[in-house]
Amino acid sequence: VTGHSGEGTDAVVILEKTPFQEEKISDLLEKHTKLELQMSNDIYSTYHLYPPPELNQIKTTVVYPATEKHLQKYLRQEVHLIRETWEDYETVTLPFIQSQSFSIQWVYNILEKKAEADRIIHENPDPCNGFVLVPDFKWNQNQLDDLYLIALVHRREIKSLRDLTAEHLPLLKNILQEGKEAIAKRFGVAGSQLRIYLHYQPSYYHLHVHFTALGYDAPGSSVERAHLLADVIDNLALDSEYYQKRALTFALRADELLFKKFQEAGRV
Amino acid sequence: VTGHSGEGTDAVVILEKTPFQEEKISDLLEKHTKLELQMSNDIYSTYHLYPPPELNQIKTTVVYPATEKHLQKYLRQEVHLIRETWEDYETVTLPFIQSQSFSIQWVYNILEKKAEADRIIHENPDPCNGFVLVPDFKWNQNQLDDLYLIALVHRREIKSLRDLTAEHLPLLKNILQEGKEAIAKRFGVAGSQLRIYLHYQPSYYHLHVHFTALGYDAPGSSVERAHLLADVIDNLALDSEYYQKRALTFALRADELLFKKFQEAGRV
Repeated sequence: VTGHSGEGTDAVVILEKTPFQEEKISDLLEKHTKLELQMSNDIYSTYHLYPPPELNQIKTTVVYPATEKHLQKYLRQEVHLIRETWEDYETVTLPFIQSQSFSIQWVYNILEKKAEADRIIHENPDPCNGFVLVPDFKWNQNQLDDLYLIALVHRREIKSLRDLTAEHLPLLKNILQEGKEAIAKRFGVAGSQLRIYLHYQPSYYHLHVHFTALGYDAPGSSVERAHLLADVIDNLALDSEYYQKRALTFALRADELLFKKFQEAGRV
Repeated sequence: VTGHSGEGTDAVVILEKTPFQEEKISDLLEKHTKLELQMSNDIYSTYHLYPPPELNQIKTTVVYPATEKHLQKYLRQEVHLIRETWEDYETVTLPFIQSQSFSIQWVYNILEKKAEADRIIHENPDPCNGFVLVPDFKWNQNQLDDLYLIALVHRREIKSLRDLTAEHLPLLKNILQEGKEAIAKRFGVAGSQLRIYLHYQPSYYHLHVHFTALGYDAPGSSVERAHLLADVIDNLALDSEYYQKRALTFALRADELLFKKFQEAGRV
């Protein structure tokens, strides 16, 4: 992405390399394509291949004239990992969460059946150990490849992973077990083909669990944000205060307010 | 990925489109590059751009001769999660690893400077707590966006995460600390912009650590395979036998031999 300024008018130009088309692979390998050896070790070797332009086009999108909002949307933000100790949580993150007034009315609307009631896939109505399972907004339910559901717990005082102790094991085990069963029943996807995890930091501070298709490279499923529910359960069973002891890693963009709070605390 | 059979000997050929190099973007846009309009609507338009081959190379990796295992590794397959207890490890996984003779000669070649000696970014030569840091085969070093390096430990008896105890903390801390420093020095990428992790299961059973650019959605960086080195260090500091107690989750393709072993053991 590049912003080019000429005569006071900006443009956004997006260049994208697209996936290979299967039927053109043999052309790529057989046509007179220059091949340059880079490295060779035992049975492994790497090359640079220079295919003819018509076999290797680049998708180009132009926004012109582009407004300030277009430019912002496409500007890259630097991202940094934070290693948050429990003390950091108490002195930086928790005050930040409490100072924010993130509205989670949409969560309460679902739990109270004021919205999306017809979308509920499964509910355990127990006020302490129960939850509601709904398709995530990101999933259109047209295909199972990018299956994505969310379990929202009925209890309202659990903000995140940081609040969990062995007291919450019955709730977490219900979500793992009943969530798998409900998805197998409704969508025919086996529990062994689901990635079931929490985010830390989450995008809203009401405890929820993500269910995504294992074959789907879902955003937020990488190791610096996702925590497998099965791991969380085992960690709590080993040590009830595991998540009040252990440092946790997460990524923040440099323009986020929480990042600034960590900077001010001298922790970045 | 394609397997090509000629005269009874198979090869694996991997073609990859690599990220753009920032300093070559203006060449791409300014050189006499053919531009073909696809669609135009208001301020938005899309094109096909046909750059000259030298500005648009394709990374090519060849494994030749390739064994049946290499072919298997790259064919698309149904994937399932396994939740491996320590008992599963001892009765299923470990006997499987020991029965395999996956050659890791290429690792020893690097450690002994018989191959890739000029590619070494950093070495701590200590036979017990030392390691060698090299660019991964998957990274062509042309741009930092997909930065990928591997630390290979000098000790040869540590197969994976499952073998680690508090005894290995000095080695792991060296890798974390010196790896970050060496990458900052050579490539100018800060430690907070690196995802540093182990795989479980690894693709070869000689302990190694992955360093990838945080902004790069590297294959194998998702929660069902990656374990942050900082988390591993903290877990071992809390409990030296953490990785001999805790169940670990990983994904296996349905055609893998280890998957069949878990099936035979009634664990899938």
